[in-house]
Amino acid sequence: MSAGEAVGEGEEVSRPPGFAQILEAVRRLAGVARVTPLLESRLLSREAGRRVLVKAECLQHCGAFKFRGAWNHVRATPAERARAGLLAISSGNHAQGVARAAHLLGYPAAVVMPADAPAPKIEGVRAYGGEVVLYDRATESRDEVARRELERQPRHLVRPYDDPLIIAGQGTVGVEIARQAREAGVGEAEVLVPCSGGGLAAGVAIALEAEAPGMRVRTVEPEGFDDWARSLSEGRRLSNGRQSGSICDALLAETPGRITWAAGSGRFGAGLAVDDESALRAMALAWRHLRIALEPSGAVALAAAMGGGPGAAVAIASGGNADGAALRRALSLGGLSG
Amino acid sequence: MSAGEAVGEGEEVSRPPGFAQILEAVRRLAGVARVTPLLESRLLSREAGRRVLVKAECLQHCGAFKFRGAWNHVRATPAERARAGLLAISSGNHAQGVARAAHLLGYPAAVVMPADAPAPKIEGVRAYGGEVVLYDRATESRDEVARRELERQPRHLVRPYDDPLIIAGQGTVGVEIARQAREAGVGEAEVLVPCSGGGLAAGVAIALEAEAPGMRVRTVEPEGFDDWARSLSEGRRLSNGRQSGSICDALLAETPGRITWAAGSGRFGAGLAVDDESALRAMALAWRHLRIALEPSGAVALAAAMGGGPGAAVAIASGGNADGAALRRALSLGGLSG
Repeated sequence: MSAGEAVGEGEEVSRPPGFAQILEAVRRLAGVARVTPLLESRLLSREAGRRVLVKAECLQHCGAFKFRGAWNHVRATPAERARAGLLAISSGNHAQGVARAAHLLGYPAAVVMPADAPAPKIEGVRAYGGEVVLYDRATESRDEVARRELERQPRHLVRPYDDPLIIAGQGTVGVEIARQAREAGVGEAEVLVPCSGGGLAAGVAIALEAEAPGMRVRTVEPEGFDDWARSLSEGRRLSNGRQSGSICDALLAETPGRITWAAGSGRFGAGLAVDDESALRAMALAWRHLRIALEPSGAVALAAAMGGGPGAAVAIASGGNADGAALRRALSLGGLSG
Repeated sequence: MSAGEAVGEGEEVSRPPGFAQILEAVRRLAGVARVTPLLESRLLSREAGRRVLVKAECLQHCGAFKFRGAWNHVRATPAERARAGLLAISSGNHAQGVARAAHLLGYPAAVVMPADAPAPKIEGVRAYGGEVVLYDRATESRDEVARRELERQPRHLVRPYDDPLIIAGQGTVGVEIARQAREAGVGEAEVLVPCSGGGLAAGVAIALEAEAPGMRVRTVEPEGFDDWARSLSEGRRLSNGRQSGSICDALLAETPGRITWAAGSGRFGAGLAVDDESALRAMALAWRHLRIALEPSGAVALAAAMGGGPGAAVAIASGGNADGAALRRALSLGGLSG
C-alpha cells in the first residue's frame, strides 16, 4: 500500500488545507499546545557563518511538533466517531501526540509503532494510556499491521501526515515562526524543515506563503532517504528503496504523501539531505548553545543550517525524544568530552 | 573580606529592592530578556509523586537567569560610569550575563572567574568580548583578585547577588512564575530555588509575596554548602567551611549575602540540600522528560522537587551551561544508556 492511500476507510483523498484552516487550527490549539520559543545563539550563528534561528519544537508537549496536528485532528473529529477509539500509525512522535490528545478528550487510542522505536517514544504513548502495537520495520508493512488492527476492531484512523487537519495543525508552527522571526528582525530566510511524509513542511509552507512571503521552506532529510529532494528535483513523487538504516528514525517515510506533495511541490525550494553524523553533531550544538535536547531526526534542519548558505536560516528542531545511546554518540562527535 | 562588603568602592550597603523595583526591572527587561517557559511533564510529576512545574531559565540568554539581573544593573548604570568599564566577580553565569549586557550597550567588561569554571562559561564570556581574569578557587580569594584588578584599573563593579538592582532583575523570574503558574491552575506551591548568594531566591520571594501569596520560596543548595539552610535554621548568617568540592560549581558562595539575607530570612521556608548524585540524576530527568539541558547547579531544585513533598512544586532550572563530563555522568546515573 502506498503512502496516502486510505487505510481501512472509504474516504477519498482530500486536498491540502488553505491558510484559513491553519488559522482555525491556531484557534483550536490556543491554550492547549505550547507556543515554543524561537531561539538564537551568537556562538551558533558565528559557527554557521550565518544568522541561525531555531524553532524549539522539542519543547512542545510530548517533545515534538506532532501534538499540534494530532490535537487539531482529534479535536475536530466528531465525538461519536472518536469514542469508538482512535488508531495512529507512527514512528513514535505522532503516536505520542495522538495518545495525549485522546487522553485529554477521554477517547481510547492505539498506535502501530516499529519495535525499534526509541524507548522514550513507546514509554510516552503508554504514559497517556495508549495501547502500543509493535511491528518489525524490516519484515512487516506497518499499513498491513494497521489494516489487521482495524479489521479486529473498527476505529478512527489518524494518519501521520497525509491529512488536511494534520497538515493544518503542523502549519501553526509556521504562523508562530512568521511572527517570531519578524520580532527578531528577520523577514527573509530559508526555513529548513525536517521532512518525512511532509506534513510539517507542507503546513509551514502554506502558513509562510500567507504570513511571511520572504521565507521559503526547504525540506531536510537523512542521506539515503531523500525521497522529497529527488521528487522535487524530478517533479514527481519518488520512493526510497528502504525503510531503515538511518539513526533518524522519524524521517524514514517511503514516499512524499499525496496531499503533502500537492501542497509542497509548488512551494518548497530544493531539498537538502544530511548524513547521520551531521545530525548527531547538531544535537551536540543544540545542547551546548541552546540548552535544548534534540533527537537525531529533530536535529537535521539545524545540521543543514550549519552547512552555511545565503542569508538567515530558520531551522525547525522538530523533536527531542532521543535515547541515551544517540546522545552519547552526539557528545563524542561534538567534542563534548571535557 | 566577607560577602556583601563593598569591594573597591565606598558605597554603603543598600537595602533589598521592593516590588516596585522588580516591576521597573520587568519594564527594563521587556524585549531584551526572554520570557522562559514553565514546563511540565506528566511522567515527571508521576515519578515525583506531586505536580512539578519547571521554570526553564536555562533557555535564558547565556543559558542562565543571571542575564536578567546583569542587564537590569548595567542598563540602570549611568553611561559615564559604565564607559570606564565593568567588572564582574562570578563563577561563570553572572560573568556571561554581564559580558552580554555590556556588549549590547557598548561598554568594556572584565570578569574574575575561577580557573576551574566549566569551559562553556569561560567561552561564553569571551564570545561577548569580555576579558577573563582567572583565579585558583582553592588558593586565592576572588575578592582579593578583584581588588587588585580595580586598583590596576578603576571600573564599575557589578556584584553577583548582593545588590538591589541584581536582586530586582532576578525577581522578574518570580513575576513570570506567578502568572504562568496561575495560567496552569496552580496558586499554591513550594517554589524551589537553587541558592548560592541568594539573589534569585530573594528576588523571587519579593515578587511572589506581591503576586502569588500562596507560594513560598525554599532555598536548595548542594550538601556541604548549605549555608542558607543552616542560617535560616539558626536565624543568623553562617558560612560554609569550604569553597570547592561539589559538582555544583555555581552554588558555592561562602555565606548568604547581607542584602539577600535581609530580604530572604523573613520570607523563605526551611532550606533544602541535595547531594551531587541527585543533581546529576535530575539533569537526566530534565533531558528525558522536558528536553532541556541543565548544568548540575541548575538541576538542584528539580532534584529537591523529585524528593516529594506536600502539594505542587515549582522548581527553577536556573542554568544550562554544563560541560560534557557532567552530562556523561548524568546519563550514566540516570540509566539513560540504552
